[in-house]
Amino acid sequence: MDRGLAYGDGLFETILIREGQPCHWGRHLRRLNLGTSRLAMPPPAEHILRTEATLLCEGMRWGILKLILTRGCGGRGYGPPVPSRPNRILMASAISRAEVEPADSGVMVRWCETPASFNPRLAGLKHLNRLDAVLARSEWDDPEIAEGLMCDPMGGVVGGTMTNLFLWDGRALTTPTITAAGIAGTVRALVIERARARGLDCLERGLTVADVAAAVGLFLTNARIGAWPVARLGSRRFDLERLPLDLIAEIRELAQQPGWDDP
Amino acid sequence: MDRGLAYGDGLFETILIREGQPCHWGRHLRRLNLGTSRLAMPPPAEHILRTEATLLCEGMRWGILKLILTRGCGGRGYGPPVPSRPNRILMASAISRAEVEPADSGVMVRWCETPASFNPRLAGLKHLNRLDAVLARSEWDDPEIAEGLMCDPMGGVVGGTMTNLFLWDGRALTTPTITAAGIAGTVRALVIERARARGLDCLERGLTVADVAAAVGLFLTNARIGAWPVARLGSRRFDLERLPLDLIAEIRELAQQPGWDDP
Repeated sequence: MDRGLAYGDGLFETILIREGQPCHWGRHLRRLNLGTSRLAMPPPAEHILRTEATLLCEGMRWGILKLILTRGCGGRGYGPPVPSRPNRILMASAISRAEVEPADSGVMVRWCETPASFNPRLAGLKHLNRLDAVLARSEWDDPEIAEGLMCDPMGGVVGGTMTNLFLWDGRALTTPTITAAGIAGTVRALVIERARARGLDCLERGLTVADVAAAVGLFLTNARIGAWPVARLGSRRFDLERLPLDLIAEIRELAQQPGWDDP
Repeated sequence: MDRGLAYGDGLFETILIREGQPCHWGRHLRRLNLGTSRLAMPPPAEHILRTEATLLCEGMRWGILKLILTRGCGGRGYGPPVPSRPNRILMASAISRAEVEPADSGVMVRWCETPASFNPRLAGLKHLNRLDAVLARSEWDDPEIAEGLMCDPMGGVVGGTMTNLFLWDGRALTTPTITAAGIAGTVRALVIERARARGLDCLERGLTVADVAAAVGLFLTNARIGAWPVARLGSRRFDLERLPLDLIAEIRELAQQPGWDDP
């Protein structure tokens, strides 16, 4: 009867674990709280989540902590129960060092045909309605291809199935807006902050496939990978040397910094 | 680890039970199979579902059989497991006669602000990504209001949170297309068939809020309610006598007809 299963009525976080601690716990919790606020769910009790996360992460050198928060059980029908009693699921899995490798030689990426769902009311949230990403990810099984890029149904670029996308034009960064589709990635926010701290412009705006093709370089971000430079998108090759490599190195390092407070 | 919970990676059916049997089993199964085909999931073994449904429906005078089919368990990440082993959940709940009342005096309906998610790849399917309907349904708690109507983010009318919508202009029916949002309701299909059998035109096309306001009459359909005439939409009142009441009565009766084969 859980509404997370019935309707995808809930949220999740995917948190990198390093040396027995979650990385960027504060950022993940803030996004989770933004989600509960926008979905009108009671916010989770942070001290409980923290205690549980501490137990799960203990002794794990590299891992992923997945946190699912659903609206809880409810009767038949879409109407949320009032009051709702959210359920939480925390799972930690060890990962190999290879899964957080810096991909110095860059990754291969392709375009997906599956459009990203377009809904301003849900955009930005890491909610449980992820069938678009599931179908996009099932478009390829070539292990050489690390990620697929998605557009919304009108052709606006949204990002990767599991990553946010940044374009570099040689002087400034651009990343797709997340006002109608896409997820407000924790590392996405980190890139915007760190770029600005370095005096680099970082614009959030609507982007087309042509904009991506015209970029000098691309990189992808999420909590596990930090930042991946893109070596190839379809047949287009990118010269990684032209990317802002200092910024990318800083993002990688910061993304892997364990801690309950933001670095 | 079930992907139905993690990503909404699955489908469901809501089937009316009458006198110990599901109604329109064949239609529901066909839609489910359309869904598994479009989501590239293995189709369910119908004889197993049927055996299980038989057991659950036994002795139930009026009820709802909910059938959830997920892609099954999978590891981390959006990529579907190959092969996948779907999980199924069947639940039957008795309902009161009032819940299938014909609503002869019509129902009150309002507009919702929450847009329906727009994605041609997912449109029509009764998949588990239903946060848009959840948020729309949470916009009101007045028990007098039976349903809310939703538009897609561009303003195209999609239908009710849990129903399909039909407009009557005095001579013909129109219902929103379900090519980019909305669900291919089993009773929606029944209305289209029966209207045509009566020599009434029934058009599927893009509709605006203005089209709905200009209608002579409206009715809503789903498997539980059959067909509900709309008496009021916001401040607009409709004269139910001007609706095609013979067709609506036929739909109600057919929707409540138990049977493993289509009537």
